[in-house]
Amino acid sequence: MLNMNVTSQIAVPTLLIDKRKVESNVMKMKNKTDLAQVNFRPHFKTHQSNDIGNWLREWGINQIAVSSVSMAHYFAAGGFNDITIALPVNLREIKAIDELASKIKLNILIESVDIVHTIDLLLNNMVNVFIEMDVGAKRTGISVDNTSEVMELAETIRSSNNLKLRGLLCHAGQTYKVKGVDEIRQIAHQSASKLNKLKVALNEPNLIVSWGDTPSCSMLDDLTGFDEWRPGNFVLYDVMQYHIGSCQLADVAVAMACPVVSVQPERNQLVIYGGAVHFSKEHIKADNGFELYGYIVRLHENGWSAPIAGAWLCALSQEHGIVQLPPKSSHLFQIGDLIGVLPVHACLSVSAMGKMLGLDGQIIACMR
Amino acid sequence: MLNMNVTSQIAVPTLLIDKRKVESNVMKMKNKTDLAQVNFRPHFKTHQSNDIGNWLREWGINQIAVSSVSMAHYFAAGGFNDITIALPVNLREIKAIDELASKIKLNILIESVDIVHTIDLLLNNMVNVFIEMDVGAKRTGISVDNTSEVMELAETIRSSNNLKLRGLLCHAGQTYKVKGVDEIRQIAHQSASKLNKLKVALNEPNLIVSWGDTPSCSMLDDLTGFDEWRPGNFVLYDVMQYHIGSCQLADVAVAMACPVVSVQPERNQLVIYGGAVHFSKEHIKADNGFELYGYIVRLHENGWSAPIAGAWLCALSQEHGIVQLPPKSSHLFQIGDLIGVLPVHACLSVSAMGKMLGLDGQIIACMR
Repeated sequence: MLNMNVTSQIAVPTLLIDKRKVESNVMKMKNKTDLAQVNFRPHFKTHQSNDIGNWLREWGINQIAVSSVSMAHYFAAGGFNDITIALPVNLREIKAIDELASKIKLNILIESVDIVHTIDLLLNNMVNVFIEMDVGAKRTGISVDNTSEVMELAETIRSSNNLKLRGLLCHAGQTYKVKGVDEIRQIAHQSASKLNKLKVALNEPNLIVSWGDTPSCSMLDDLTGFDEWRPGNFVLYDVMQYHIGSCQLADVAVAMACPVVSVQPERNQLVIYGGAVHFSKEHIKADNGFELYGYIVRLHENGWSAPIAGAWLCALSQEHGIVQLPPKSSHLFQIGDLIGVLPVHACLSVSAMGKMLGLDGQIIACMR
Repeated sequence: MLNMNVTSQIAVPTLLIDKRKVESNVMKMKNKTDLAQVNFRPHFKTHQSNDIGNWLREWGINQIAVSSVSMAHYFAAGGFNDITIALPVNLREIKAIDELASKIKLNILIESVDIVHTIDLLLNNMVNVFIEMDVGAKRTGISVDNTSEVMELAETIRSSNNLKLRGLLCHAGQTYKVKGVDEIRQIAHQSASKLNKLKVALNEPNLIVSWGDTPSCSMLDDLTGFDEWRPGNFVLYDVMQYHIGSCQLADVAVAMACPVVSVQPERNQLVIYGGAVHFSKEHIKADNGFELYGYIVRLHENGWSAPIAGAWLCALSQEHGIVQLPPKSSHLFQIGDLIGVLPVHACLSVSAMGKMLGLDGQIIACMR
């Protein structure tokens, strides 16, 4: 329940989080992974918060992924002891990695033989390794079609002193750019087929094939062939995921409360205190130049309404945002009102804000 | 001098700042305003740092603009006592505004008669007011052509108890979107003409016509008719300002040092640890889909090189960045190297990072 004392005290842009929506999003995904009998290792880069990590642990989550060494340290300090750093190993942080590996079960990503030789000499503690695979996102990893390079790298890891091969990991980032669930299903099935052939070639049945992106994990029930799912954004969802088809707008678990600082009737616009430093500049752009930075909701005692039809956040400068309203509706708003915005990219809004506010008035601390 | 011990200790994305370039940018602008015999009130939203504020005070800057009430409190605590909050007054922070007005000379922006009535009752201390004018940016403010509304608002302010009319203020944000200096000159001259007619109509010669945007203040020598300049970004500049024509790339005073975590020879790409949470997602996009998030420089003992021709930051995810290299040059880089990136939008990169590192190893704290 949103304590109205909470909203009445909001004076600056504030990221509200609805715990019931978070729980619903998490439990829906967890039930799917339980049914599929696979590891569920949510990516915690989205919320970057031990407060939310504690919620997820209560709901049965113990294995996590993160996107930096410092984030791994943060969540280890919060009590998580099985963490995958899902970014190619950063040589410049090898001491911090080694230190963390002395305390928890730590998994890192490697994609080159040279790096194995280098870090094996620098480590004093056992670190688990996933070979990072590229299944078409063309960001990092060895191409899934390059069997010989994978075999050579696996052999090098196996003959190292401080690295233990755990499996193959990929992030099919191209699912963010395709049109519809059929194409996503095709990407997942082709990737599973190729990765499992590599697993057979590696001749170690306990190796884990780890898969993760919110669109595929949200839209597909059948992810046969993957041993582990690592979606991240699904915990909060956002307008981008709605447009991809991963969620309903009602599933979006965060809304930025923003004060109205200007009403412009002749343009049917509001100007809010809430800009690029709060939302980031992630947006959806149409061919006609239309830019969408978020949908507009009304705040009420239980959280927030469905989006107001025909209203959207259409431009951002550093601290200002411009809200386009439906025709002839600017008289419904006045300076000093508080409106809500469903963000286009929740992960970046959380990172920009560094904290959130629960509907019960509890401050949710994030890593900084 | 960049102490090589400094770069050798950089393990994560780190925003480097070159004080000599800051000084050169600031003094060049200050000399122009001194010649024009106008107030110089730089906008401190760009660096958000009392450490840098101290540099500017040493160089003769005492009047500043900021973009939020909290930023005004931050810089007041840092010793600045003449501050303009260059965002329409946020009713929800009126207590914090009143408190600050008891300590310093505080200037706020107002654009509606109703707000004057409301806040005059809530204030206990005298606050200076600029009427916010819209000269074509279509964000906030009263249209410069709406004389009657300006006259009515000025009269209301004059008959209030706690508000004192100081002048007319505008931000010609449309200068960011035009092609070339001639169009910017036309915007400035037309705006000056209209604003000064209003000033005459207001019949108070001491009123200040305040003007501010980095493109016009950088490109025009003759800003006759404005009593005050409030550029912000010019302190650091960035790739966006270079593209607009406000600066040379050599003037850009910040570079993000980023570790290389992956080399992809077949695509002539590097992957760096450094993504949207460090740079923001501001970019320049060409019609052909080309996206530019920053230029690539080499770090050396005196700072950084000119950009590497044919290399650019071409994509960002949350923590990763992809650097496109010139053909057949990926062998010049290896995992663990540190490269520099000139950001597209320095203000947002500073805000995302929350601190900077001087070339002498000094940590520059920012507001958080």
